[in-house]
Amino acid sequence: MNLVESLRALLGEAGLLTSDLDAFETDWRKRYRGRALAVARPASTEEVAAVVRLCAEQGVSLVPQGGNTGLVGGSVPDGSGRQIVLSLARMKRVRAIDADNLTLTAEAGCVLQALQEAAAARGLLFPLSLAAEGSCTIGGNLATNAGGTQVLRYGNARELCLGLEVVTASGEIWQGLCGLRKDNTGYDLRDLFIGSEGTLGIVTAATLKLYPRPLAQSTALAACDSLEQAVQLLSLARARAGSGLTGFEVMNAFSLALVRKHFPQLPQPLAASPWTVLLELSDSEGEAHAQALFEGLLETALESGLITDAAVAQSRAQSRAFWHLRESIPLAQSEEGLNIKHDIALPVSAIPGFVAETDAALARAFAGVRFVDFGHLGDGNLHYNVQAPEGVPPAEFLAAHEAAINEIVYDAVGRHGGSISAEHGIGQLKREELAARKDPVALALMRAIKKALDPQGLLNPGRVL
Amino acid sequence: MNLVESLRALLGEAGLLTSDLDAFETDWRKRYRGRALAVARPASTEEVAAVVRLCAEQGVSLVPQGGNTGLVGGSVPDGSGRQIVLSLARMKRVRAIDADNLTLTAEAGCVLQALQEAAAARGLLFPLSLAAEGSCTIGGNLATNAGGTQVLRYGNARELCLGLEVVTASGEIWQGLCGLRKDNTGYDLRDLFIGSEGTLGIVTAATLKLYPRPLAQSTALAACDSLEQAVQLLSLARARAGSGLTGFEVMNAFSLALVRKHFPQLPQPLAASPWTVLLELSDSEGEAHAQALFEGLLETALESGLITDAAVAQSRAQSRAFWHLRESIPLAQSEEGLNIKHDIALPVSAIPGFVAETDAALARAFAGVRFVDFGHLGDGNLHYNVQAPEGVPPAEFLAAHEAAINEIVYDAVGRHGGSISAEHGIGQLKREELAARKDPVALALMRAIKKALDPQGLLNPGRVL
Repeated sequence: MNLVESLRALLGEAGLLTSDLDAFETDWRKRYRGRALAVARPASTEEVAAVVRLCAEQGVSLVPQGGNTGLVGGSVPDGSGRQIVLSLARMKRVRAIDADNLTLTAEAGCVLQALQEAAAARGLLFPLSLAAEGSCTIGGNLATNAGGTQVLRYGNARELCLGLEVVTASGEIWQGLCGLRKDNTGYDLRDLFIGSEGTLGIVTAATLKLYPRPLAQSTALAACDSLEQAVQLLSLARARAGSGLTGFEVMNAFSLALVRKHFPQLPQPLAASPWTVLLELSDSEGEAHAQALFEGLLETALESGLITDAAVAQSRAQSRAFWHLRESIPLAQSEEGLNIKHDIALPVSAIPGFVAETDAALARAFAGVRFVDFGHLGDGNLHYNVQAPEGVPPAEFLAAHEAAINEIVYDAVGRHGGSISAEHGIGQLKREELAARKDPVALALMRAIKKALDPQGLLNPGRVL
Repeated sequence: MNLVESLRALLGEAGLLTSDLDAFETDWRKRYRGRALAVARPASTEEVAAVVRLCAEQGVSLVPQGGNTGLVGGSVPDGSGRQIVLSLARMKRVRAIDADNLTLTAEAGCVLQALQEAAAARGLLFPLSLAAEGSCTIGGNLATNAGGTQVLRYGNARELCLGLEVVTASGEIWQGLCGLRKDNTGYDLRDLFIGSEGTLGIVTAATLKLYPRPLAQSTALAACDSLEQAVQLLSLARARAGSGLTGFEVMNAFSLALVRKHFPQLPQPLAASPWTVLLELSDSEGEAHAQALFEGLLETALESGLITDAAVAQSRAQSRAFWHLRESIPLAQSEEGLNIKHDIALPVSAIPGFVAETDAALARAFAGVRFVDFGHLGDGNLHYNVQAPEGVPPAEFLAAHEAAINEIVYDAVGRHGGSISAEHGIGQLKREELAARKDPVALALMRAIKKALDPQGLLNPGRVL
């Protein structure tokens, strides 16, 4: 039997697709279009292991896929037509919730929002939250160590995971599901698989951390004249609110101007200012306590000149509206036309210097260029995006200057001790940048690990390394 | 030149010891006594790398050592007299504190307490805290992924580390120091080195997370009739206090009876009860707020029958006295005589069942045996220690029954989804248990990684794997 026949014998008709594969072959941003030999859709961990063994026997490589919402081309096949896409979508069972232990065990194909809802149904919180949550899967979230809007308090996907079940490159099953907060029995395999983008093994299930649901959430907007002031406001908010501070987002004036232009129906409670900060407090005591905390904090910030204006949301609906402003920036950007995106991280203290220096360097090199700077300042994570000058066709600008702009930005990231991929991963998109910019000793260590765990190079080849 | 001469030429007289090595050759509990060829004491990362290269050329193995306070024999040489102890003690510089980024960068030989003090001098908190903090080093803390008393809120050493500088087995330097909260550029090398007990590379420096100092800390003791109630109290405290709950320790009646017997001068505010819980709240608003939170929480717990009595500390001194009770248990145990220690982790929800079942099994097998059960219930980490029956000489009991008791305990740990080493690591002490009990696929992955990163097997051989 050839591979496709063997896979069909193993998985049945429901478990193998060989036509109409477009949705599996194209990435979400439509930058990458590949061609697969077939899409395997196993329904159990044992079936995943059997698929891997069949592929290993025949030297055929595998591309694991969850919700296929990644931004770096990590989950679509190459153009050879010889790869198998391994979709985890049928493995979507919540296996267990342990309320006393605050853990949830779920299969890789569970959609993130379904997990949030399963936790909420038990009065608990699974705090991972990001734009694609309606279709991304927890397997993909773990494979890419996804971030999102609550990292400041709860950490990335990695910090939310206690244990994994993984199918190795040789088709064995590592049974590493556990609900333990402490476990010092050997090397940290869990964190090695997390963020490896399917190149070291295939995550089939995970045990995740849950939290008590905060009784209240409160949101405020504050206007700052400079990023330096926004950083000082962050320090103040951390000292006052401790880990009650669950969100600290920053938006430059142009980001909000684009929202105003393309979504004029969205109210913007503050007058335009160089930088606007969105703060979120989560409170285990209640709405009144959160509001009082916010008022004290913002009063101090106003008095000490860190902010020029502020608005505290007066209701849940207004909180949502404040977040909606922040979340509308990527959509407003798209309306304005293609831009050149950078998902970067820096030490929080380095961000003001980085932005001033890089804005200036780009403005010198490309007169009239515009900056859509926004992101998770509390995590040191900026979405530092560069828009064509007014009147210049965005696609032409991008084609002509993307490489040069990336070089200026990533060189500055390097000088300021930053990372060229904060939360989106490497995939295909940043593989060459990684090879060029990462510490060579680190790259050699990573290659040695890849070779040790996947000697045939069959798991998601050409991604990351 | 032979190796010792080469090392002396490299490190100078201050950097190489060849006599009076006892303190480096014997572990803290005096269970292991080795013999070293020499103790190398490099003063810089470059010197560490050069030592490793010299040893690698001659095929001589290295045992990295920090404060030598480990409990599993991981940091002393074997008896061959052919190993080099690599002491990081001279590398104790705090390289940088970045208050806006809430990070501290320090060399491996920094004593933990010195780091806590360096952070405090800037008004900040480095929350790792454990009994040996006056002499253990941050390099050792990271090599063993140390835990301690504030894990519930801040995590283990692993969660407190953002970046590492590591000398690899081939004597190269991985420059992975970074102060980033998000960095998805390839595999997670950091977490692989953390907890690898010096078998994959030598940590020479680290960038660590700092936190704002809480304005107030408040402590309470509460009496429970059962462990089930203690677990319910934990859930209630988490829901009420959120991440303000920084400590949740449990002590059985016999633990506190031993303290009463050997340290009668220590006041015990509550009457004896089957289980006593120590709760700690950290508060960013102040003492009064913390006290009010405690009173509300304990009132609810009393009303709903979760606890039978409680005492809230009325001063910092009384808080210290409550903690002192808890910290005196290991000393009281020593006074009572040798016992058989188990540093285990379980899902919190499994702890009542585990203790009931294992107490019963051991009592059946060894009539009159006594249980010193205490630990970090909030983390699912129990120190489940077994003391000889009254009147039986402890050393004889231990010699005769340690293996059989370990088997009963560790078998039960396995059945309940737990870990045989929560926070102490594997070292020499639990290496055979690990080989016998860990998932074989995990062991094979670990061995493949060890071989890939240390092909000559020169870094702390015979430890962990």
